[in-house]
Amino acid sequence: MLEQIDLTRKVSKEDFKATHVELERRLAALQRESKERGIPVIIAFEGWNAAGKGTLINRLIMPLDPRGFTVESFRPPTEEEQRFPFLWRFWVNTPANGRWTICDRTWYRPVLQDRVTGLTRGRDIERAFRDINAFERQLADGGTVIVKFFLHISMKEQKKRFDQLRKNPATAWRVTKHDLKRHKQYDDYFSAYDEMLARTDSEFAPWTVVESHDERFAILKILDAMISALERRLAAPDSNPGENRSIGSTPERDLPGELKESILDRIDLSQHVEPDDYKQQLGKKQDRVRELEYEIYQERIPVIIVYEGWDAAGKGGNIRRITQNLDPRGYEVVPIAAPNDIEKAHHYLWRFWMQLPKSGHITIFDRSWYGRVMVERVEGFCSETEWRRAYREINEMEEHITDFGTVMLKFWIHIDREEQLRRFESRKEMPHKQWKITEEDWRNREKWDAHREAVEEMIYRTSTPYAPWTIIESNSKRFARLKALDTVIEAIEHRLA
Amino acid sequence: MLEQIDLTRKVSKEDFKATHVELERRLAALQRESKERGIPVIIAFEGWNAAGKGTLINRLIMPLDPRGFTVESFRPPTEEEQRFPFLWRFWVNTPANGRWTICDRTWYRPVLQDRVTGLTRGRDIERAFRDINAFERQLADGGTVIVKFFLHISMKEQKKRFDQLRKNPATAWRVTKHDLKRHKQYDDYFSAYDEMLARTDSEFAPWTVVESHDERFAILKILDAMISALERRLAAPDSNPGENRSIGSTPERDLPGELKESILDRIDLSQHVEPDDYKQQLGKKQDRVRELEYEIYQERIPVIIVYEGWDAAGKGGNIRRITQNLDPRGYEVVPIAAPNDIEKAHHYLWRFWMQLPKSGHITIFDRSWYGRVMVERVEGFCSETEWRRAYREINEMEEHITDFGTVMLKFWIHIDREEQLRRFESRKEMPHKQWKITEEDWRNREKWDAHREAVEEMIYRTSTPYAPWTIIESNSKRFARLKALDTVIEAIEHRLA
Repeated sequence: MLEQIDLTRKVSKEDFKATHVELERRLAALQRESKERGIPVIIAFEGWNAAGKGTLINRLIMPLDPRGFTVESFRPPTEEEQRFPFLWRFWVNTPANGRWTICDRTWYRPVLQDRVTGLTRGRDIERAFRDINAFERQLADGGTVIVKFFLHISMKEQKKRFDQLRKNPATAWRVTKHDLKRHKQYDDYFSAYDEMLARTDSEFAPWTVVESHDERFAILKILDAMISALERRLAAPDSNPGENRSIGSTPERDLPGELKESILDRIDLSQHVEPDDYKQQLGKKQDRVRELEYEIYQERIPVIIVYEGWDAAGKGGNIRRITQNLDPRGYEVVPIAAPNDIEKAHHYLWRFWMQLPKSGHITIFDRSWYGRVMVERVEGFCSETEWRRAYREINEMEEHITDFGTVMLKFWIHIDREEQLRRFESRKEMPHKQWKITEEDWRNREKWDAHREAVEEMIYRTSTPYAPWTIIESNSKRFARLKALDTVIEAIEHRLA
Repeated sequence: MLEQIDLTRKVSKEDFKATHVELERRLAALQRESKERGIPVIIAFEGWNAAGKGTLINRLIMPLDPRGFTVESFRPPTEEEQRFPFLWRFWVNTPANGRWTICDRTWYRPVLQDRVTGLTRGRDIERAFRDINAFERQLADGGTVIVKFFLHISMKEQKKRFDQLRKNPATAWRVTKHDLKRHKQYDDYFSAYDEMLARTDSEFAPWTVVESHDERFAILKILDAMISALERRLAAPDSNPGENRSIGSTPERDLPGELKESILDRIDLSQHVEPDDYKQQLGKKQDRVRELEYEIYQERIPVIIVYEGWDAAGKGGNIRRITQNLDPRGYEVVPIAAPNDIEKAHHYLWRFWMQLPKSGHITIFDRSWYGRVMVERVEGFCSETEWRRAYREINEMEEHITDFGTVMLKFWIHIDREEQLRRFESRKEMPHKQWKITEEDWRNREKWDAHREAVEEMIYRTSTPYAPWTIIESNSKRFARLKALDTVIEAIEHRLA
C-alpha cells in the first residue's frame, strides 16, 4: 500500500481552521454515543520513528472526554511480559464496553521490529500473521471497533526530523542509537511495513495510512477516519454486532479539498513522447517482450497483466501494443464484460480462476475481478459488506497465485475528465469510431467522482508487494504504451534475474 | 479430534432398515430445495485408504437426482494441473448455484500427503493452511454450503481390508505399493490428519469425522450430517447468505440410539482403585508432581490445567489432590463462576487471558472458557452463531498459547447420571455438605441430555494435538485422582524430555 502514498499532501492553515473544530465536535459526540451504546473501541498507532505519533495522539484526544479513554504505550516487552504469549498484554488491555483504548505501538512487533532484526523468522512469521488476524477478528466479531493508523514519512523526512531533534540539547536525548540504526534500515522496514499492511488489512480492521509530513493534513485525516469508522458501526444495530461489523453508511462531511483529493488527480498527465521517439522505441521494446515471452515459456513462469482504466483511456490500443509482436501460442487476451448467466450462477471470482494462465503463458485481462470494487460498488450491484470484504478476498487470491511464482502486473490506465470528454466528442464525430461510445459511457461519466473514490480505495487497498498497481498516465497514448511495455519488461526481467 | 473417536460404534441391521429410507427421502427433498433456492453445495470426502470412500459416496448419491450433482475424483495433480496454483482445479470445479459437487479427495493434499512425503514443509505448511481456510471462507461467504467428511479407520482395520482385497485376484490390483507404504506410515498420517482437522474446522466449513469400521453406522452418520447442514442453511434467509452461514436450527430426527449415543456413555466408569493401593500411590505421585513443579519453574515452562465436568463429579477434590503437595508460590487455582459486571463488559475470552500463568507457573482453572460452548449454549446465554464460532476462537487461543511453549491439559471429570443422583442425595443428607447442592444443580440435572450433547461436541471440536482433552472416569474418586495425577506427570515429563 505504501508505494501509492503521496507524501506531499498538505492542508493550508485556513482550511485547517475552517474544519477541525467541527470534526472534533463530531468525534466527541461519537465518543458519547459509543459510551451509551456500550461499544468498545481500539485505536492502533503504528509508523516510523519521528512520524509524530505522540503529537497526533495528543491532538486526537484533545476533544475527548478523558474519563472515557486510556492511552497505552507498548514499549518492547519487559522481561516479565516476555513470560507470556505475545498477545497476552494486548488482550488484558482490551477496552471494556463503551471505552476507548488508544495504543501507541501495538501487537505488530513480531512482524515488524522482530522480523527485521531476525527474531521472528520462517514459519513463525506466518504464525504471527495468523495470530494477529485471529486476534482482530475475534474482537471485531465480539463487537469492538478497530481503527488502525500507519503514520508514514519518507527516509529524507525522518533524517530531517532526527537532525532537528539532535540540534537542540533539550530534545537530543530523544534520538537514540537504535533510532539511528533503524533509520539506516529504512528500506528493510519499508518492506516489512508494506507486507504487514497488505496481509492485515481487512473489512473488520482496516488500515488507514496517514501521510504525516504535514501535521495539519495528518490530524484531519485521522479525525475523518475515526468519524467514518464510528458512524458506520453506530449505524448498525446492537444485536449481533459481529455480523454487521462493516455495515452502515457515512454522511458527507465538509472537508478541505486537499483531504478529499484523489491521488489520481496528482498524477502528471502532461508526460508525452514525440512521434519519432515513439516509433524508434516501440519496435525495440516489443522485440524485447517477445524475447521475454520465450524465456518465461522455457522457465515455466506464468504472467498475468490486468488492465483497468477509465472509459476511452486507451486500454485496447495499449494492449495491442503489448501483444503485436508476441507469439500467439504464448498469450491470451481475456475481455471481461458483465457476467453471463453461467458466470452469475457462481462465486464472483470463479470466472477469473477459469482464465488463469498456466505456467509459461501470459494472460492479459481487459478488465478483471476489480469490477467488484468499482462498477459493482458504484452501481450497487453488490452490498457494501460484499465489496468491503472483496479487498481481502482479492488480496488473498493474488497472494495465492503469486506464491506459485506468477508475475502479476496491474495497470490503471489513467486520463483526466477533460481528456475523456475530448475523446468522447471525437468518437461521436468519426463514423468508424461511433460504435465505441454508448449511452452508458456518458452515464458513467456522470458518476466520475463516485468512480474516482472507488478507484482510489481499490488502488490503495490492493497495491501489495506481490501484486502492485502501476498507474499509466495516458493523456498521451504514446507515452502510455511505452510505459506499459517498460513495466512489463522490467517485471519479467526482475523475476528472471 | 481423532484421539476422541470411538471406532467400535455400529448400527444393527434392523435399526438401519428402520431409519435409512426416511433419511434418504429427507436428503432428496433437501436437494430439491437447495436447487430451487439456488444454493451451491460442496461435499468433501477425505480419509484413510480403504476406509470406504467409494462405497459411501455411492450410498450418499443413491437417493439424489443425478441431474443435480457431480462427483469429482481428485487424483494427484497431473503435469498439466501442476502448471496452476494448487487451488485452481478446485476453484474451477466449484458448483454453480443450486448444484452439488461431491469431491473424492480434496484441496487438503498440500497439508496431508505432500506434507508427510516432505513436499510441503516449513513456511509453506502455514501458507497452505492459510490458503485453504481462505478458500473455504470465501465460498461460504458467497453462500456455498460446505460439508466435510473424514472417514476414519484404525491401522489394524486398514490392514485387514488390504489383506482381504489382496486375497481376491479380482481386487488385488486395487492395493498398490504406495498404499502399503502409506499403511506403514499410519502414525505419520495420523498426526497430519489430526492437525489438519484442528486447524481447518470452522463454523462455516466444519468437519464430521465418520467412524467407518461399520458401514451402516457410517452411512447414517453421513446422511444425518448432510441433513443438519442443509437444514441449518435453508432456515436462513437468502439475502446475505454469508452472514447467516451458521444460523437456523434443525428439527429432531428419528435416529437409532447408536447414532445419538454419546462417546461419554461408552466410557468405562467401573474402573476403581482399592483404598490401600490408593494411599500407597497417591503420595508418590504427589511427590513427583512437586518435583516437576520445580523443574518447570527452572525451565520457565507455563502449565495450564483445565477442569470441567458434571456437577458433583468431584472436581474440587481432584484439584486438591494435585495441589496438596505443591509449593504454593508456583501455582494458582482460579475458580470460574458467572462473569461479574466488569467481566461482562469485555470480550468473553478476556477474563481468561487475565489469568494466564506466566512462564514457570501452573494455573488450574476450575471451570473455564468452555462455559461458552456448554452452559451458555444450553441456557441460550449466547446466540447459536456465537457458540458455533467459539470452537474456532478457543482453538486459536489455545494454539497461540501452546505455540509459546505452554503445556495445556484439559480434564473432563466424568460420572454417569445415576452416580450424580447418588451424590446429590447424599449431599442433601449430610449437614456439612448441604451447601454444595443447590436448586440450580437439580435444574441442570434436568437438562442432562442437552448438556451431554454440548459436552460431546466440545470434546470433539476442541481436542487438538496441542491441547487434548482427557476424560477422567470419576465414579471412583480414587481412580479419578490417580489418573489426573498420572496425566499431569506424563504431559510435563513429555515436555521436559
